Amino acid sequence: MGEVKRVRPQSCTCAAELREKKHRSRHVDTREAYLDYGAATPVAPEVLEAMLPYFSERFYNPSAPYSVARGARADLEAARATLAHLIGARPGQLTLTAGATEANNLAFAAVTGPVLTDAAEHESVLACAKARPHVLVGVDATGRVDPQEVEAALTPQTELVSVELANGEVGTIQPIREIAQVVERERFRRLEAGEQTPLLLHTDASQAALTHATNVSSLGVALMTLSAAKVYGPKQVGLLWAGEGVALHPLVRGGGQEGGVRSGTENVAGAVGFARALELATQARKQEASRLASLRNRLQRQLQQAVPTLVVSGPKRDKSRLPGLLHVSFPGLEAQRLVIALERRGVYVGTGSACAASRMQESHVLRAMGAPAEVARGSLRITLGRPTTQELVDYAAKQIVEVAREEAARVGVSL
Amino acid sequence: MGEVKRVRPQSCTCAAELREKKHRSRHVDTREAYLDYGAATPVAPEVLEAMLPYFSERFYNPSAPYSVARGARADLEAARATLAHLIGARPGQLTLTAGATEANNLAFAAVTGPVLTDAAEHESVLACAKARPHVLVGVDATGRVDPQEVEAALTPQTELVSVELANGEVGTIQPIREIAQVVERERFRRLEAGEQTPLLLHTDASQAALTHATNVSSLGVALMTLSAAKVYGPKQVGLLWAGEGVALHPLVRGGGQEGGVRSGTENVAGAVGFARALELATQARKQEASRLASLRNRLQRQLQQAVPTLVVSGPKRDKSRLPGLLHVSFPGLEAQRLVIALERRGVYVGTGSACAASRMQESHVLRAMGAPAEVARGSLRITLGRPTTQELVDYAAKQIVEVAREEAARVGVSL
Repeated sequence: MGEVKRVRPQSCTCAAELREKKHRSRHVDTREAYLDYGAATPVAPEVLEAMLPYFSERFYNPSAPYSVARGARADLEAARATLAHLIGARPGQLTLTAGATEANNLAFAAVTGPVLTDAAEHESVLACAKARPHVLVGVDATGRVDPQEVEAALTPQTELVSVELANGEVGTIQPIREIAQVVERERFRRLEAGEQTPLLLHTDASQAALTHATNVSSLGVALMTLSAAKVYGPKQVGLLWAGEGVALHPLVRGGGQEGGVRSGTENVAGAVGFARALELATQARKQEASRLASLRNRLQRQLQQAVPTLVVSGPKRDKSRLPGLLHVSFPGLEAQRLVIALERRGVYVGTGSACAASRMQESHVLRAMGAPAEVARGSLRITLGRPTTQELVDYAAKQIVEVAREEAARVGVSL
Repeated sequence: MGEVKRVRPQSCTCAAELREKKHRSRHVDTREAYLDYGAATPVAPEVLEAMLPYFSERFYNPSAPYSVARGARADLEAARATLAHLIGARPGQLTLTAGATEANNLAFAAVTGPVLTDAAEHESVLACAKARPHVLVGVDATGRVDPQEVEAALTPQTELVSVELANGEVGTIQPIREIAQVVERERFRRLEAGEQTPLLLHTDASQAALTHATNVSSLGVALMTLSAAKVYGPKQVGLLWAGEGVALHPLVRGGGQEGGVRSGTENVAGAVGFARALELATQARKQEASRLASLRNRLQRQLQQAVPTLVVSGPKRDKSRLPGLLHVSFPGLEAQRLVIALERRGVYVGTGSACAASRMQESHVLRAMGAPAEVARGSLRITLGRPTTQELVDYAAKQIVEVAREEAARVGVSL
C-alpha cells in the first residue's frame, strides 16, 4: 500500500485546497476551522488504509467461485460480524446499504400500514412517512419527543414508530428507551387482545453513534439505521439492523445479495471501512464524548459572553444533547451571510442540516420547535469533531464573534 | 497524496495475497491469471488517485453552504458532466446510483405498466420485470434477441422494453439499434392512433462499455444503465441516463439529491472515480477491443486445438460478441471442479455469471439459449481484461487444458 496522508481538515495544504484558498478574498494562513462534522466527516486514515486493498489487490467479486473471491467474501462477512458485534447484534441481522437514507427507506418498507414519527426527524424519515398514512407528533422547544405524546398518537393500526436517537440539527437526544416501553406496552395490549397488527420501533442512530452507545438490545428497538459517513467512514455506506422476526422487503431487486433484501455487487471496501470506522468510534466513544462536550461548552461560553443576545437552541443539560453540537442563533442577522463571512476566515459551519441548507429553506426542525422566524434565520449549526482542538475552538469563537459584530453593525442590530 | 501502488492482479505480492497463497495446496510462483474481469475489475491506479482526495481533504458534504463544500459540489458536477459527455448526453439527464442493479431498478420504476424483456438479461432486469406484468422473449442459440420477436411481443399496453447492449455471460452483442427501430415504429403507431401509453427502450450497457460505443443518441434508447465497477472504477457506483421527457420515480426518498430522484449524501469520490474510469475506457476503447479480441481468439484456438470436444457458446462472428469474453464448455465435466482445480494453479475463471455462480444454479442464460444440461454443467466464462497479456493467455490455456484432461481421466470421459 502507498503511504496514506494524515487527514488534517483544519490546516490543509494539499494542491486542491491551495487552489481553493487562492479563490478566497482573504488569505487564511494555516488557521482553518472546519466545524461541520455533523454534515460530513473525513475518512479516518486507519479507515482508508483498511479500505485500500479492496480497490486493487482484493477487488474480487465476493460472489465469484474461486479462492481469492471467497477471500473477499470472507472479509465482507468479517466486517459485517464486527459491525454486528459493535451494536450487540447478530451478523445475519445486518443489511448493508448505500447510506443511512437508503437504510431508513428500507426500514419503512418493512411495513405497509400507518406509521408514526416526529416533526424533527431527518428528511429521509419524513419523506418515507409522508409517502404513506402517517402521524407526526410534535417536539418541545428543545426538540424533544414526549413519549406520552407518542403513546397518545398510537392507534391500533400503527405499524411503525420511527424516532431518531439524536437530532442532527439541534442535538437533542431522544428518549428512545421510554418510547420503546410505550411501544412494548402497545404490543402487549395487541397480543392480549388477539390483534395481529405488528408494531415496530425504528431509530436512526446515525448522528448519535460517535458519542452514544448503540446497543440494540439496551435501546429496545426493532430496527436501527447507522451511517459510515458520520463516523469517519466512507460516504454512501450504511446499514439497517433488523431484529428477530422483522421481515424486510427489497427496494432494489436482482442478484439476491444481502439475503435477497438488497441486490447489487457488494461494496467490500465500504463495508470494511465502515467496520473499522465504527470500531475506532466505539473505542474512543466515552473519552471523545466528554472531550467534545468540554470543547463545545467552551465555545458556547465564549460566544455567550461576547454576544448577550445569543440564542442557544436544543436541550440545556449536557446529558440531553449531542456533545459535539452547538446550535446558536444571532437574532436579526442572516445565517447565510454569516456563513459566507466565516468561510473567508477559514471557518466552515452549517446552517441547519446540510441537505436543507443548500436549498436555503427554513429549517423544519426549528419550525417544529416553535422557534421564531428571526431566530431560525440567524442560526448556525456548529459541530465539532475528532480533529477539533481547544486552540481551534478559540480561533473559531473569535471569528464568529467578529463576523457577527460586523454583520450587526452593517444591518444596525445590537447584539 | 501517498504513492498509489500499481494494480497487478496477475502477479500480486501484497501481504494479503501472500497469506491467501499459503492456504493453497500448490504454490503458484508469480504466474497468476485472473480471467474474470466480467465479474469484477480492479480500480485503475489513475481512478484511485482521482478518488483519494475525496476521502480526506475534500470530504465535504456537497450540500453544505461554504466554499470548500461548494468545491466538492463543483467536482461532483464536473464528474457528472464528463460522464454525460462520454455518452453524448446532458449532465442533468444522469442519475448517479449505487451501481447498475439500482440503476436498472430505477429504469423499471419509470413505468407502471407491462414491460418486455428477454430471458437472457442480467438478474436485476429479470427480477424487476418479474415484479410486474411482463413478457419475456426468447433468445436464439447464440444468445441473440430477435428484433422481430420483440416486435411481435409488443402490445399496445407495453410501457418499457429492456434489452442489454451485451450479454455478460456469453458475450452476445444485442441488436439494440434494430430494436430501437421497432420501438420507434410502435411509438409512431401509438401517436398516429392517438394512444397515450408511453413506450421506453432501456439498455443495460454495463458489460459493453469497455469495448463498445455507448452514445445514447446513436443507440436510440430512452434509458441507459452503466456501472463503474465494470470499467475499472469503484463498486457500488453506477448511473442511469434518462432522455428527454422521461420522468423517473424515486426508489429512495429523503434530502432530494440527484434532482429528487435519488436521495442521500452523494458519493463524490465514487462519481469522480467513475468519470475518470469511463474517460480512460473510452480513450482506449477501440484499441483495447481489438487487443482483447485477438487475445481471446488466441485462447479459443489453443483450447480448441487441444480439446476437440470443446463447445464455444455465443455468436461465432467477432463483430457480434464481446471481444474479451470466451464462454467454453467441456461436456461431461463439472465446471465447479474445473474452477477449483484451476484456482490451485492460480487461474481464476467464472462459471456463468458471478451472481448465479455462488449459488451453484444452472445458468438461466444457457437455459434460454437451449444449451444441453451437459454443456451448461461443464461451462466456464473466461473474461480477459486490461492487465491480460499474451503470455498470461498462453499460461492459462495450458493450465485449462491440463486440468480438463485430468478431470476427464478421473471421470472417464474422452475430450
